[in-house]
Amino acid sequence: MTASYDTISTRLDGNVLSATFNAPPINLIGPEVVRDLVGLLEELSHPGSVRVVVFDSADPDFFFFFPHVDLTKVPEYTDEAAKGGGPGDASLGMLFHKLSQIPAVTIAKLRGRARGAGSEFLLACDMRFASRENAVLSQPEVGFGTSPGAGAVQHLTRLMGRGRALEAVLTSADFDAELAERYGWINRAVPDAELDEFVVGIAARMGGFPRDALIAAKTAINAIGLPTPANVRADAALFQQLVRGEGAQRRAAELFEQGFQTRGRTELGLGEALGDLKAVD
Amino acid sequence: MTASYDTISTRLDGNVLSATFNAPPINLIGPEVVRDLVGLLEELSHPGSVRVVVFDSADPDFFFFFPHVDLTKVPEYTDEAAKGGGPGDASLGMLFHKLSQIPAVTIAKLRGRARGAGSEFLLACDMRFASRENAVLSQPEVGFGTSPGAGAVQHLTRLMGRGRALEAVLTSADFDAELAERYGWINRAVPDAELDEFVVGIAARMGGFPRDALIAAKTAINAIGLPTPANVRADAALFQQLVRGEGAQRRAAELFEQGFQTRGRTELGLGEALGDLKAVD
Amino acid sequence: MTASYDTISTRLDGNVLSATFNAPPINLIGPEVVRDLVGLLEELSHPGSVRVVVFDSADPDFFFFFPHVDLTKVPEYTDEAAKGGGPGDASLGMLFHKLSQIPAVTIAKLRGRARGAGSEFLLACDMRFASRENAVLSQPEVGFGTSPGAGAVQHLTRLMGRGRALEAVLTSADFDAELAERYGWINRAVPDAELDEFVVGIAARMGGFPRDALIAAKTAINAIGLPTPANVRADAALFQQLVRGEGAQRRAAELFEQGFQTRGRTELGLGEALGDLKAVD
Repeated sequence: MTASYDTISTRLDGNVLSATFNAPPINLIGPEVVRDLVGLLEELSHPGSVRVVVFDSADPDFFFFFPHVDLTKVPEYTDEAAKGGGPGDASLGMLFHKLSQIPAVTIAKLRGRARGAGSEFLLACDMRFASRENAVLSQPEVGFGTSPGAGAVQHLTRLMGRGRALEAVLTSADFDAELAERYGWINRAVPDAELDEFVVGIAARMGGFPRDALIAAKTAINAIGLPTPANVRADAALFQQLVRGEGAQRRAAELFEQGFQTRGRTELGLGEALGDLKAVD
Repeated sequence: MTASYDTISTRLDGNVLSATFNAPPINLIGPEVVRDLVGLLEELSHPGSVRVVVFDSADPDFFFFFPHVDLTKVPEYTDEAAKGGGPGDASLGMLFHKLSQIPAVTIAKLRGRARGAGSEFLLACDMRFASRENAVLSQPEVGFGTSPGAGAVQHLTRLMGRGRALEAVLTSADFDAELAERYGWINRAVPDAELDEFVVGIAARMGGFPRDALIAAKTAINAIGLPTPANVRADAALFQQLVRGEGAQRRAAELFEQGFQTRGRTELGLGEALGDLKAVD
Repeated sequence: MTASYDTISTRLDGNVLSATFNAPPINLIGPEVVRDLVGLLEELSHPGSVRVVVFDSADPDFFFFFPHVDLTKVPEYTDEAAKGGGPGDASLGMLFHKLSQIPAVTIAKLRGRARGAGSEFLLACDMRFASRENAVLSQPEVGFGTSPGAGAVQHLTRLMGRGRALEAVLTSADFDAELAERYGWINRAVPDAELDEFVVGIAARMGGFPRDALIAAKTAINAIGLPTPANVRADAALFQQLVRGEGAQRRAAELFEQGFQTRGRTELGLGEALGDLKAVD
């Protein structure tokens, strides 16, 4: 690993890379984060010394992993994503699809809120472990007036089945770690005090295993569990179409008036705030 | 909503429709229920004011949601289903397949027993919440001598995986709400005292969300989680073939002697009654 | 049932067959076990008097169900498997794929350790019930330097979803019954004192049900939940290729020095032993 990134601090320990997102004030997924993620994935896409990557967040109060995309900069972060998703694929969905296939094992360690594309980033990783006491996942897109565009529809339906995926996506509700575990959104909810040690342990364990075996097995499981690029592109197109619509614009404007995308009550309790928006006739 | 139905009472509150099945004495799925369901789905299949539908049962003791189809009237209810499932599709399976795709969100609220096609009705809904203390689900078809014909094979295998679906279907056993939740048959088992408020809450929440987002996301999830019409038709044909066989006829006759399809012990404990039938050599 | 087997004792009770594996000292899956399994499946593949088969292990201390294949005899047991998997299909994977499709219901009752192909044998059965206090499942292949070759990649991804399957396979960790149940690896963890009665009960119940209904429903569920033969063959080929590699050979040699494949600490705690092997650069 040679590059350094503005919004991702990395630390290499043996062949385990820790990658910590740090995009103050609230870790929104904007052009800088996407640019840095494209760079990091480019580095990781060539088999090298890194065998396992652990992603977490530097948010000092553990309020936010990734709260969601920066809704004021959809065109800008989409442009950045285009540089990583592949020729002609200007979507976060295709970038995350690429993340799912890098020749290294990816672990997401979740403290704080991971909503929208934040949750979809986690879903693209190979495995997800969350603080039992301090984690929130949600796909708030439908509450805004659009549909998840970066993988949640594909992953959640495969992970938890049609009924629970419909509940998670259509209610846009906040899920705590316990319910997220029960539904299969995350691998496990781990007591907060044990989470770091747990993740360090399995990362080091896999870091000592033969790389070709890790990657061969990952590739075989991906062949069954990942959506097709066509699925990913269709979801991205639907998101892009609906997010520009009048309904989504009006609901976002109402939330911005309440302090949306700042470090405050609306972002912390976004699940509730969505339910309190003016009902659409 | 303009029509009224003999076996379904409806009440519209904003854009949330409550639809309560009431087919005394035990809510069997017979020609009248199917006729009314065809009519209601026809109304709901045109995008209109209804955004969310909550289905429940009026059975006064909460004994039965839908215990199963009326086995004395298979040809009659099948004829009625043919009017709703599409040209040439004379099966409850295709009618329920259509239910899964109506442009409104469907929630099933379960108290009492939902067996056979009753369980399959629930599985066709978008989400299922059951009383923790007072709910039973089962697919008793194999115990009778046939195979589930209206969606359970497709839905259960996708929701709970091959091993648990084989257990549920091949044992024909009664599942309580706790086990049904653990296996993924229902979204959640909710304490009975909280169930109504819980369902009212999420129905109203989704009722305030933009319709096009709700339907777009539902359609995308259905594209992954629903079986194909060919799957549905094959299951229906298998049910029809086996249910007319000598084995199924003899077992049904034995159950009718014990009070099957009346408000009594055999229907309440059907899982046990099936196990007590004369073993087939 | 007329044949008798060196490593499988069978007992027929009505139409329920008990088949108990007994291959001292530790029930390794070697040429004899595979030869006997091929014979038994051949008998069972013709619809006959056996309607339900319960598989368990005779290991006197309940230490081992099947710990895994005999790594010193891969060519030999593969040759035996070729006689059962179908023309040209020299793999345990195709043999287990055939097991999944025999015209009888198969139940695995697990006490002790089922690792590698031992776990894959269980996954090929129709349902799996494990002692809550005394069961361990794992896929240790990646820790050795290869990839699961006899069905685990296919079954686990479908049963527990991509994230949990990646965790189970890439960490090569030991799973106790409680976690295996939570992830869907087994149907249920049953208290040890109740396990025998529970399995006898559901076996007898299904044994009294009409055979054509059991088999029709099983076939319909298999059509959704089983992998294709091409998937099975690809996994088998990958296993065979990697297991012959230098990495896998070196790691196996290190384990043999520690008492691997004998009745001792290394086999009992194989999950831990794999983590303690020399890390691969």
